[in-house]
Amino acid sequence: MSTPTESSEETRLQRLQDILASGAVREATRLLRSLAPAEIANMLESLPAGEREIIWNLVDEEQDGQILLLVTDEVRAALIRHMDNAEVLAATANLDLDDLADLVQQLPSAITAEVMDALDDQRRKRLEAVLSYSEDTAGGLMNLDTVTVRPEVTLDVVLRYLRRLGDNVPSDTDKLFVVNRDDSYLGVLRLSQLVSRNPEDTVAEAMSLNMQPIRADLPTTEVARRFEAYDILSAPVVDDEGHLLGRITVDDVIDVIREEGEHQFMGRAGLSEEEDMFAPVLASTRRRALWLGINLATAFLASWVIGQFEETLSKVVALAVLMPIVASMGGIAGSQTLTLAIRGIALGQLSSKNVRALLLKELAVGSLNSLIWAVVVAVIAGAWFQSTAIAVLIAAAITINMVFAAVTGSVLPLLLERVGIDPALAGSVLLTTVTDVVGFFAFLGLASLFLV
Amino acid sequence: MSTPTESSEETRLQRLQDILASGAVREATRLLRSLAPAEIANMLESLPAGEREIIWNLVDEEQDGQILLLVTDEVRAALIRHMDNAEVLAATANLDLDDLADLVQQLPSAITAEVMDALDDQRRKRLEAVLSYSEDTAGGLMNLDTVTVRPEVTLDVVLRYLRRLGDNVPSDTDKLFVVNRDDSYLGVLRLSQLVSRNPEDTVAEAMSLNMQPIRADLPTTEVARRFEAYDILSAPVVDDEGHLLGRITVDDVIDVIREEGEHQFMGRAGLSEEEDMFAPVLASTRRRALWLGINLATAFLASWVIGQFEETLSKVVALAVLMPIVASMGGIAGSQTLTLAIRGIALGQLSSKNVRALLLKELAVGSLNSLIWAVVVAVIAGAWFQSTAIAVLIAAAITINMVFAAVTGSVLPLLLERVGIDPALAGSVLLTTVTDVVGFFAFLGLASLFLV
Repeated sequence: MSTPTESSEETRLQRLQDILASGAVREATRLLRSLAPAEIANMLESLPAGEREIIWNLVDEEQDGQILLLVTDEVRAALIRHMDNAEVLAATANLDLDDLADLVQQLPSAITAEVMDALDDQRRKRLEAVLSYSEDTAGGLMNLDTVTVRPEVTLDVVLRYLRRLGDNVPSDTDKLFVVNRDDSYLGVLRLSQLVSRNPEDTVAEAMSLNMQPIRADLPTTEVARRFEAYDILSAPVVDDEGHLLGRITVDDVIDVIREEGEHQFMGRAGLSEEEDMFAPVLASTRRRALWLGINLATAFLASWVIGQFEETLSKVVALAVLMPIVASMGGIAGSQTLTLAIRGIALGQLSSKNVRALLLKELAVGSLNSLIWAVVVAVIAGAWFQSTAIAVLIAAAITINMVFAAVTGSVLPLLLERVGIDPALAGSVLLTTVTDVVGFFAFLGLASLFLV
Repeated sequence: MSTPTESSEETRLQRLQDILASGAVREATRLLRSLAPAEIANMLESLPAGEREIIWNLVDEEQDGQILLLVTDEVRAALIRHMDNAEVLAATANLDLDDLADLVQQLPSAITAEVMDALDDQRRKRLEAVLSYSEDTAGGLMNLDTVTVRPEVTLDVVLRYLRRLGDNVPSDTDKLFVVNRDDSYLGVLRLSQLVSRNPEDTVAEAMSLNMQPIRADLPTTEVARRFEAYDILSAPVVDDEGHLLGRITVDDVIDVIREEGEHQFMGRAGLSEEEDMFAPVLASTRRRALWLGINLATAFLASWVIGQFEETLSKVVALAVLMPIVASMGGIAGSQTLTLAIRGIALGQLSSKNVRALLLKELAVGSLNSLIWAVVVAVIAGAWFQSTAIAVLIAAAITINMVFAAVTGSVLPLLLERVGIDPALAGSVLLTTVTDVVGFFAFLGLASLFLV
């Protein structure tokens, strides 16, 4: 799927930058007011630090809270640094509780206390309830703005009740939650049922029983999978005893899915999904340095392996010319298997139960491909250096390395997962270490045994 | 974000495999009936070919269509191969039009004709309308099951109309579409408004005007961004003249977002997001061979560069030992920048307008980090080989390579995008080619000038 080069957002961004360049602040403000918070958030992330600050000051204060929620962690921290406490307080004033809970957890603690103090009693208690759940669980994702009804009343009574609530019915309500007297969850009444059935019917007759409530401690990735599997728009969240606590809406689930995807993609390069494209140079340098350092250690390990064969290398320089090919073929083949395995784990499709089947298949694929490419490389290398011995050696080394790569790529992610290391982050480095070490060792080791 | 190792799905998969192993077909069938199509789809993707076929034969025929929609392209093709035409026909019988349109496009053409023939006239015409739009556009994503109302009627009239429609109101309806006499789109009437406002109000009074309709030719990635930005549950799709054609629901958008993420992640390893974890060995081998071949060509290019300096290498073997470090540091640093840029493009945050700012920042970060690590490597390499000259050389080569890596990583993705090549697929290979060639050339070239 490709993205269009000329998106409407790009044009707006261009216009805004042109306006800024010409100093027409009033015009920029007007343009900003025509945008949704998510669009402004996206635009802020596209801007280098200086321009970002200018735009941030022009944004309507009422939108500040929503925008802070939508930008990545890093950009949020940068924006908050430019606000005084009163501004932060104002920004949190008209947020939903689930959103407020998200934001509060990322504010400097001095401001958090002020925000909590400014809430009325009921709102503070409910916020504390949401905050008691980890951000990575259903409880941390839920909102408390549920509209509940009793099973014994008629739909007509429900309709009159909703008309009394009026604007207090959240605009994204697609269903009501049916509970009994002690707030135990019983089922859902979809608005589509409410409006299309006989108003004399009772809630009990019109409600659906097939919506499983979500336990507050369910991890958000599981919540997302369930929303995807059942095409859910909103779902009830309950405590251990089945009491209704709140609801999760699909817009929050979309954020989880987007972040899951970015985590896998960014993790492979040692970056966080919260990385700011225009982070300050020093902060970026520090964070990247860590990743480079880890990779340098593995590169030195590979060099050390090569160093063991200095004598062999000095006799046959062709080995030095060809050795990167052996390492590279293993690395590429292994990273294909690794990618498949990491996605399988993330989707809940790969586990200890079927990893053996994956391993066998990848071994077969790796072996076949290693034979094909070993022959190709052998022919080219043999012709290049006019040596059958080198041709045979490099073919053997490539075969060995690609078989190791298939095994490592299949098994490593689950092993890392089991010991609590994120395979999306560590998998790629470790795999490359294996394929480098095995590749160099096999190629140079065989050469020193049979060639020199 | 980590995924739990013991998910409920995993346990079910285990149970199913145990049941299958013991041959208790009836029990397996009962377990399958308790699962949603998406869960069965997920399970089928987790199974090796043999077991997959057994389970597929046990699945309730009514669910076949839904499941075929939910599995990846490759798994779908494999499942369809095990069905006769009558079964495929039955599977398509109770699908929504948008889903049917998706499926029809992927059926063997002989079956497609049969499926089309089996439809009644109205349904076939509507299907042809949906099929006239590309799968990658809003038109290809839309469904035709909209419920429309006129602006001048009262909410009470709307409620009575909906009760007459009864079960014909789609259960995921969250809003009705307001159109005038010639089907021009005017606005939306949310069910939450319909049920909470005075029934005497007219639709015109209760409807929202702020939902922009989506043009049928808008790319699906843009549709997804708009759903995310405005937290939309369903949106109207219109033609060039503003006539209502259908609606897009958020569940279809979630699929787009999931696929976007997987495309980036899988693309980096030369895999498609539709890749089947348990694809047949020969098919996998053939597809992977292509990617390995491309990478082999770039590896030979790097070898050729090294080959230009055979004489130098034969005099100073330490160069052969250390040269992978230079290439590796450039590759790692470049892939971090590249990852940031590819995500930026996918989110519409990086364009020709701000790529210069990214380039400058990445140059600064790359330069700083190259200085830090050049010193570290120089100290270690100098001590290892007892040579100041080698220390200075490798420091210079690493600095040069990391600066090239920052430039390539920042600029390459947009260049590829502009010439119509997918940066998620080609970016990583090309970047590695640059960092390998520049790394080896700088290190060995400088050595042959100053060392030998």
